Amino acid sequence: MGILIKNVNLIPMSEKREVIENTNIYIQDGKIVHIGEIKKELEVTRVIDGKNKVVMPGLINSHTHLGMSLLRNFADDLPLHDWLTKKIWPIEAKLTSKDIYWGSLLSMVEMIQGGTTAFCDMYFSMEGVGRGLEESGIRGVLTRGLIEEQGQSQIKLNETKELYKNWHGKGNGRIKVMVAPHAPYTCSPDFLLEALNLAKELDTGIHIHLSETKKEVEDSFKIHGKSPIRHVYDLGIFEVPTIAAHCVHVDDEDIEIMKEKNVSPVNNPSSNLKLASGFAPVEKMLKRGIPVALGTDGSSSNNNLNMFEEINLAAIINKAVNMDAVSVPAKSALEMATINGAKALQWHNEIGSIEVGKRADMILIDMDKPHLYPQHNIISSLAYSVQASDVDTVIVDGKIIMEKREIKTLDVEKIKFMVEKHTKDLINR
Amino acid sequence: MGILIKNVNLIPMSEKREVIENTNIYIQDGKIVHIGEIKKELEVTRVIDGKNKVVMPGLINSHTHLGMSLLRNFADDLPLHDWLTKKIWPIEAKLTSKDIYWGSLLSMVEMIQGGTTAFCDMYFSMEGVGRGLEESGIRGVLTRGLIEEQGQSQIKLNETKELYKNWHGKGNGRIKVMVAPHAPYTCSPDFLLEALNLAKELDTGIHIHLSETKKEVEDSFKIHGKSPIRHVYDLGIFEVPTIAAHCVHVDDEDIEIMKEKNVSPVNNPSSNLKLASGFAPVEKMLKRGIPVALGTDGSSSNNNLNMFEEINLAAIINKAVNMDAVSVPAKSALEMATINGAKALQWHNEIGSIEVGKRADMILIDMDKPHLYPQHNIISSLAYSVQASDVDTVIVDGKIIMEKREIKTLDVEKIKFMVEKHTKDLINR
Repeated sequence: MGILIKNVNLIPMSEKREVIENTNIYIQDGKIVHIGEIKKELEVTRVIDGKNKVVMPGLINSHTHLGMSLLRNFADDLPLHDWLTKKIWPIEAKLTSKDIYWGSLLSMVEMIQGGTTAFCDMYFSMEGVGRGLEESGIRGVLTRGLIEEQGQSQIKLNETKELYKNWHGKGNGRIKVMVAPHAPYTCSPDFLLEALNLAKELDTGIHIHLSETKKEVEDSFKIHGKSPIRHVYDLGIFEVPTIAAHCVHVDDEDIEIMKEKNVSPVNNPSSNLKLASGFAPVEKMLKRGIPVALGTDGSSSNNNLNMFEEINLAAIINKAVNMDAVSVPAKSALEMATINGAKALQWHNEIGSIEVGKRADMILIDMDKPHLYPQHNIISSLAYSVQASDVDTVIVDGKIIMEKREIKTLDVEKIKFMVEKHTKDLINR
Repeated sequence: MGILIKNVNLIPMSEKREVIENTNIYIQDGKIVHIGEIKKELEVTRVIDGKNKVVMPGLINSHTHLGMSLLRNFADDLPLHDWLTKKIWPIEAKLTSKDIYWGSLLSMVEMIQGGTTAFCDMYFSMEGVGRGLEESGIRGVLTRGLIEEQGQSQIKLNETKELYKNWHGKGNGRIKVMVAPHAPYTCSPDFLLEALNLAKELDTGIHIHLSETKKEVEDSFKIHGKSPIRHVYDLGIFEVPTIAAHCVHVDDEDIEIMKEKNVSPVNNPSSNLKLASGFAPVEKMLKRGIPVALGTDGSSSNNNLNMFEEINLAAIINKAVNMDAVSVPAKSALEMATINGAKALQWHNEIGSIEVGKRADMILIDMDKPHLYPQHNIISSLAYSVQASDVDTVIVDGKIIMEKREIKTLDVEKIKFMVEKHTKDLINR
C-alpha cells in the first residue's frame, strides 16, 4: 500500500531543519520513500490530507508496565512501602496471564490514542503482550521482569529464552525481546550475571531499574560500597546495550559511566514525582551527551500512559529544578520522546525520526483546536500545549493504526468490557 | 428551565461524603434544588443522562491573564528577563483592546472545553473580557492590572472604578470586579494604599502577585527590610479579601500572616516550573489550614489553560518536593481547583461545591474512555488520569454552556478565525 500525506507541516526530529512546512510524505512497503514535492510516478493508494495537521515521529514510551493498567487508581496517596507491600504486591500476586493480556491491550489502546507507536514493557507474563503487539500493529520490546526467587530464578530465565524464541523479530520486525533483571536490589550479583550471559547468548539488550530511590542508592553503598550504577557496571552489565529505567539519584561518576558505556537512561517524570522518588538530573545527562529517553512507568504510579504529558513535564520540571528557564527546552523534550527513545530500544536506524529510508512510524496532530491557537511556534506547541487527545492519525510500519481517532486494529469496546470483567474477578479472587 | 441530571456519580466537594453514587441532581432557576431520589413533583424541561459520567463542581481558575492566549508559544525557553523585556513586553505594548477581546474569548472557549466555569483574570484592558463573560455565560472576576506609571496611575485607578460600575454584579451576578495592584515591585507603597482605598470604597477584594520569584523576595528585603507579604501586610492590604497569586518563595512568617488575614494564595504549578520560579510550599500552607487555590497563569507561561493539568501537577509535584508520597493527596488537589478557588474569589457561598441551595456550576466528565478504565477510585481518577478533553458537559448558573463537547454560547470557528487575524495584524504592526 502506498500512502501520501499531502500538504503537511513536518517535524522530522532529524539533524536537519526543525520544521519543514507544507510538504508531502510518501510511504511504500512500510517505509518512508520520499519527502518533498509531489511525485506523480510514485504509486499511491491512500491520500491523507495534512491540512491543519502536524506530522511527527510516533512517540516512544521507553519504560512501562502495561499490565498494571488493571491497577490504575487502585492505590494512591500512600507511602511507597505501604503502597507496594499492602496494595500492589498482594494484588499482583493474584494476576493471571489473561488479566495481563487484557490490561496490556487496554494500555495499547490508550497509547495509540495518545500517539505512542513503540514501547518497552517489563512485566511478569509477556506472551499475551506479544499477542497484543501482533494484533495492535504497533511496535514494542518485550521484557520479562526477573526478580530473583529461590527455585524460580532458572524458570524465569527460561521464560525469557522462550519469549525470545517465540517473539523476537516477529510482526515484520515490530517485536523485540530483551532480558530484564528487575533491579540490583532484587537480583544478586550472580543472578545479574546469569541475566547478562543470557543477553549475550541471545545477542540482545538489557532492561533494568537503576537508582530510582534515595534509599536504594544508600542501601547499595552500604552493601556493595558503591552506587547501583557502579555496581552493575563492575559486573559487566553495560557490555550489552542497556535501558536503565529511572536513574533519579545519580552522581557525576554514574553519569560518566553511562556516557562511557552508551547506557540509555529513561526519565519517568510523573512516576518519580507521584511516588516521591525525586528529580532526575536530566539536564546534566543531556548536556553530557547522553540521549535520555522518556517513559510513563506503569499506570498505577502515573496514572496514565500519556507521553505528551511526560514531554511537557520533562520540559518544565527541569527548569524549576535547575532554576533556569532555558533547561530542557521544548526540542530536547521532544527528542527524549522520539529519537532518544529509538536509541534506547536499539531501533534508531529504523524509527525515531522521519527520514527517507526509515520505517514509517508517525503521528498526525490536529492543530485546529482552540488550545493550539494561534500558531507561533510548532515545536513549543508540541511540548507545552498539545494534548494526547489532539492525536488524529497514527501510522506504524506504514500501516494506518488510527485515523480520525478511530483505532483500526483493535476492538476498543470489547477491550473495555473484558478489562472490567477481569478487574471484577481480580478484586473478588 | 428545570434540569435533571439522572443516575450520575456525584463528587460534591462538600464536607460530606467524597462520592455519592448513582444519584440525581435537580437544577431550577440556576440553583441546585434537590440531590437524591427522583422527585416527580419537580418540573423538569431537560433530562441529562448521567450514565458513565461523573459530575463535579466546575473548576475555578483563580489566577490567569486571558488576553495572553494571543502570545501562546510566542516566546519560550528563554531566561525570564529576556522573555519579559525582549519578547513579552514589546509585543504587549502593541496589543489593542480588540486583540485582548478576541484572545480572552479564545481563552474562555479553551477553559469551557476543559471544565473551567469561573476565573479570576488580570490584564490591562478588561471591558472586552466583561463582554466575553456576558456572551460565554461563565463566571469571572475582572481585575484591571495596575502597574504604577507616571501620569497614568490615576487613569488606571479610574478605569478600575469604571470597570466596577459597568460590570460588577452583571450577568445575573456572574461577574465581579476587584482591584489589582500588579505587585509590590511595580507599585510603590503609596500607590498600593491608593489601590487599597479604592477596594475599600468599592467594598471589593484585591488581586495581586506576591513572592513569585526568589529575586523579588531578595529585592524586597533589600528595599523594605521585609518579605513582599510582610510588606503589604504592614501597609494594610490584607484588610480586604486578597487573592495572592504565586506565593512561591514564602517563609513561615509569611504563612502565619496569610493564615491570620485569610489571604488566598493561588498556586500556579505549570507557570512556576516553566519560568523556573520554583516550588511553592503548598503542603505546608494547606496543613496550616490555608485554602490554597489553583490557577494556570497566562497562556504564554504555561502554555495552556488546562486546569486538570494543574490539578495533576499540584498533586504529584509536592510529593517529590516533600519526599513524601502522601503530600497533597488527590482530594486536596481537587479542593484547590474547586472550593478553595471559590473562597479565593469570595464566591464560596454560591459555588465551589455541589450542594442544595448553591448556584448550579458543574461539569460532567465522560468516564467511558480507555485511559479511565478500570474504575477503582473516582477521586484518584479525577486527579491523576482525567484529561481536559474528557469534559463532556458544562453547566454554569443553571445554564448548559457545553454539551457533548459542543459549546452553545460562543461561535468557536469565528473566534479561531478572528484570533488568527488579530495575531497576524499584531505581528506585522
